[in-house]
Amino acid sequence: MNEHERWQELGQQLRVDSIRCVAPTKSGHPTSSMSAADLMAVLISKYLHYDFAQPQNPRNDHLVFSKGHASPLLYAIYKAAGAVSDEELLTFRSFGSRLEGHPTPALPWVDVATGSLGQGLPIAVGIALAGKRLDRLPYRTWVLCGDSEMAEGSMWEAFEHAAHEGLDNLTAIIDVNRLGQRGETMHGWNLDSYTERAQAFGWHAIAIDGHDVAQIDRAYAEAVSTSGRPTVIVARTLKGKGVAAVEDQAGAHGKALDDPDGAIAELGGPRNILVQVSAPEGNGGPHRFDDGELLLPEYQTGDEVATRKAYGDALAALGAGRGDVVALDGEVSNSTYAEIFAKAHPERYFEMYIAEQQLVAAAVGMQVRKWVPFASTFAAFFSRAYDFIRMAAVSRANIRLSGSHAGVSIGEDGPSQMALEDLAAFRAVHGSTVLYPSDANQTAKLVAAMADRDGIVYLRTTRAATPVIYGADEDFAVGGSRVVRSSDRDDVAIVAAGITLPEALKAADLLDEAGVSARVIDLYSVKPVDGETLRAAAEATGGRLITVEDHWPEGGLGDAVLDALADTDEPPRVVKLAVRWMPTSGKPAELLAAAGIDAGHIVEAARQLVGTATAGAAER
Amino acid sequence: MNEHERWQELGQQLRVDSIRCVAPTKSGHPTSSMSAADLMAVLISKYLHYDFAQPQNPRNDHLVFSKGHASPLLYAIYKAAGAVSDEELLTFRSFGSRLEGHPTPALPWVDVATGSLGQGLPIAVGIALAGKRLDRLPYRTWVLCGDSEMAEGSMWEAFEHAAHEGLDNLTAIIDVNRLGQRGETMHGWNLDSYTERAQAFGWHAIAIDGHDVAQIDRAYAEAVSTSGRPTVIVARTLKGKGVAAVEDQAGAHGKALDDPDGAIAELGGPRNILVQVSAPEGNGGPHRFDDGELLLPEYQTGDEVATRKAYGDALAALGAGRGDVVALDGEVSNSTYAEIFAKAHPERYFEMYIAEQQLVAAAVGMQVRKWVPFASTFAAFFSRAYDFIRMAAVSRANIRLSGSHAGVSIGEDGPSQMALEDLAAFRAVHGSTVLYPSDANQTAKLVAAMADRDGIVYLRTTRAATPVIYGADEDFAVGGSRVVRSSDRDDVAIVAAGITLPEALKAADLLDEAGVSARVIDLYSVKPVDGETLRAAAEATGGRLITVEDHWPEGGLGDAVLDALADTDEPPRVVKLAVRWMPTSGKPAELLAAAGIDAGHIVEAARQLVGTATAGAAER
Repeated sequence: MNEHERWQELGQQLRVDSIRCVAPTKSGHPTSSMSAADLMAVLISKYLHYDFAQPQNPRNDHLVFSKGHASPLLYAIYKAAGAVSDEELLTFRSFGSRLEGHPTPALPWVDVATGSLGQGLPIAVGIALAGKRLDRLPYRTWVLCGDSEMAEGSMWEAFEHAAHEGLDNLTAIIDVNRLGQRGETMHGWNLDSYTERAQAFGWHAIAIDGHDVAQIDRAYAEAVSTSGRPTVIVARTLKGKGVAAVEDQAGAHGKALDDPDGAIAELGGPRNILVQVSAPEGNGGPHRFDDGELLLPEYQTGDEVATRKAYGDALAALGAGRGDVVALDGEVSNSTYAEIFAKAHPERYFEMYIAEQQLVAAAVGMQVRKWVPFASTFAAFFSRAYDFIRMAAVSRANIRLSGSHAGVSIGEDGPSQMALEDLAAFRAVHGSTVLYPSDANQTAKLVAAMADRDGIVYLRTTRAATPVIYGADEDFAVGGSRVVRSSDRDDVAIVAAGITLPEALKAADLLDEAGVSARVIDLYSVKPVDGETLRAAAEATGGRLITVEDHWPEGGLGDAVLDALADTDEPPRVVKLAVRWMPTSGKPAELLAAAGIDAGHIVEAARQLVGTATAGAAER
Repeated sequence: MNEHERWQELGQQLRVDSIRCVAPTKSGHPTSSMSAADLMAVLISKYLHYDFAQPQNPRNDHLVFSKGHASPLLYAIYKAAGAVSDEELLTFRSFGSRLEGHPTPALPWVDVATGSLGQGLPIAVGIALAGKRLDRLPYRTWVLCGDSEMAEGSMWEAFEHAAHEGLDNLTAIIDVNRLGQRGETMHGWNLDSYTERAQAFGWHAIAIDGHDVAQIDRAYAEAVSTSGRPTVIVARTLKGKGVAAVEDQAGAHGKALDDPDGAIAELGGPRNILVQVSAPEGNGGPHRFDDGELLLPEYQTGDEVATRKAYGDALAALGAGRGDVVALDGEVSNSTYAEIFAKAHPERYFEMYIAEQQLVAAAVGMQVRKWVPFASTFAAFFSRAYDFIRMAAVSRANIRLSGSHAGVSIGEDGPSQMALEDLAAFRAVHGSTVLYPSDANQTAKLVAAMADRDGIVYLRTTRAATPVIYGADEDFAVGGSRVVRSSDRDDVAIVAAGITLPEALKAADLLDEAGVSARVIDLYSVKPVDGETLRAAAEATGGRLITVEDHWPEGGLGDAVLDALADTDEPPRVVKLAVRWMPTSGKPAELLAAAGIDAGHIVEAARQLVGTATAGAAER
């Protein structure tokens, strides 16, 4: 058997195994796997450099299935590479198996979860960026893309960035099998549609027959030898290739084959080819940037400093202290203050322009290679990347996101720039951490803590300068809070964070004059939340809490407090002050007042709550 | 003065007024306005057909500022058109003014809010689609785009769709002023970068000098006379054009000019040109599709029907009853069952492929023209369009979104396809409605109600078939709930919706056997929520509630219940059952059990709560 015949045989094996693994649960996407089998057979036989025994080898290539639903093909590859047994292959999609419906890093050879289309390529751009500019290693990132997912704008963010950065270590393979889930794609088998777009975006593009192993071989060779720009291989394929009942048939997407045994026979029966995938050459480890002393910025109490500025200062300091910290920003680094890091550590700074999906995806890609990314933009614009953030949690990614310009307190720019849903969105991410510091020294400490925190870690910062109220020597733990003001006998507790903390403190002063003693809690850690301090406040005040947040009423700080106190013997009464009106332009103070979250409204709510509760108690 | 000189003078006036309006609050983006002033001067003088006295004239052209931060220019246009007084112009960005920092429909001539970049063009695709396929009127949609926002993938979703649909009634104008907020764009003044990309995407592209009114004039004429495809005008401009201190200068983005009077003098001083913008020609109204009888589908109690199937059935029925209802789907219509509508009403169905941002944007565009859009995809994938949904609320848009395949109960596909944050995300949208029906007849009634509901209305449907428990004659109001099971003396109340309602009912049966009487509430309206029924349940059970949801613990049904009961005299104890583990593949029942939200876990929680409460009471 010559090389080409061996590749063809391997392609058939990958098809057969894709069908076999779907059969037990009758669930999965065999036809989407069969179209790309020859493309992958040649790749793993000759071009992929990967040490399956050492998935953490820093010199390994990366193989990302952007079309995650072709997981049967990926797992069939793992079997062919000897990494997964045939027995395990047949556990596909059953409860308890690592071989999930779409790939996840439950498997050590999977870098990131895919399955939400249009994400694998942008993440791969992050891996390739890490390879070129951080690790400085010759590994290549290969991405198998579906043709349907080319309709996702995020794919074009990736095309744009990969070309802009000259990522010749990145190869995308588009499996143009013509058929989406419910019918034909916009472009069918018009390969020119894809090559012309890719070329216009600055890529080298090669159109081939995706079932002709000689053409596939030549295309990979050309990709590897192309320098200065990434290559895309646009491959015409047949969905369900090799099995007449499903080949190029509509209505065969995402379904087990009706007659798997017949299909396997049609493909020439099972095979047991074991591929010796080449390990990467050489031994050198990744480039490392120097670690230095970590000297966090310090601010004088009484000064006014915006927490976004403290973020930038602290991030730059963290970068000086730790060589593994990198920063990315979405073309607003002069607003988020990521520019301070950019100036201090230009080699580790990545300008992602106004492409928030690519911004977050690049961070996910960089953490694949153990870098510690901090990505920033206006908090409102992380909503653009919410699907990527959701999926990053499925990827078990460790990324840190900093959103500035939160809430109505930004003022004149108006609601399009005001994050008012970010706390809700980030809280509803599995395993996430949500921080909302109130002063600059606290921000600095929390930024340092973020670097060591796993999962999706979000920091919400404020546009306006706010008073520095904590000394630079104070420590702030994730999951903690600060009782900023209290007495032996508090009538009410005000729970605030960020921009509302100064308002709460002003309110407490005013209430004091009116004979009402208010405890003030700085709930800077919105998730995890300090339930103990909240419960103590509930008890001390006879169950009278006010929460105040520059956020919609749903899912933010108020709901975090309610959740922490829900399953207690006697839950307190909680009055939630939040933004219940669609904001406009105006001065920050005008908008805080109009939204009902300034000191005056806190005073009013507290007086009402204390009065009502007293009245209520009298009635009982 | 000849025509060209008049246009040049008008351009100067628009610049002067952009500077003038920013001066009072010292807030805004004059330089981003000045670059596009000549482009807009020619447009409103000769090409725009718009009746400012009748903004609702269906034949009006549409002018969308995708670069919403150029609002000073837009408002200067309104002044030049006589729609806004000079006095009002100077209220720009001050509290109470309609002239907000970024355009919103507070002004009758603004179709949609912009300011989150990359949204205006995709929304304009929706307007142009409405013009061509629904209204069937000759109005043209003009979109002013920034060059920086071309990095947003959503712009390329729009390019792809507009070409695919042959939208020759759409003209995009890219103001290539080279400078973003913090520095140069990826492509600077390389106009070919833009024209080549646009051409590869199937557009007609014209590169011009954006300050040469003759070239601008010719480009518009060419755009208007181009048929079969949309046109993009790529205009080389100078940011801050005409004022030496800021012209083509970095660092001048989003700032009032230091010396506005000097700048105005440099531009030749204020002018008071009044432009007679041409009203649209002709009188015919929009095409209307026939209304018919609304015959909602009816399902037999005891049968098992998936709520997603009921969505499709009901939507098709609604389409038969109402000619204004239209449907869109993101290439999964055979899963969401939007395909039933597509088959019944092909003229009013829009296939948006796998481009969720464009999917939602098109719906927003269509409602501009008073159509009643329903857009569907997997619930998880609306997270891709979260920024568009957020902005749709700022646009005061009336759109209906249906997300299928919610939660772990989808089974084998795994977490990438499981919406577990959608309730949180949609609740945190201003003025939104969030519905999560539990049976097919209820779904049908709610789908009908959605058509008449303003704002962002979200329906969460379930993949699996669930028992039909309500008769087809029952009514279900938005904001309501159903007490499905109760007795005179309930020990505990279980609050559920969707897939967890059958589990709650099973649990109630099991609890009954154990001597515990459980009230079961179907909280199908998650927002607004039926506080009265919840309070009654709290009172009846001595304050013992269990919420159970196929969703992360944050921001969903449980938090909606807590919120409704937070500010009451004696809030109940609430045990929240939700998904607290990263799900895997598996059978739906296995996953509901593993997530702790099946009948068994409800029983366990109820017994513990009832026992604990009793014990607690004894202790007190």
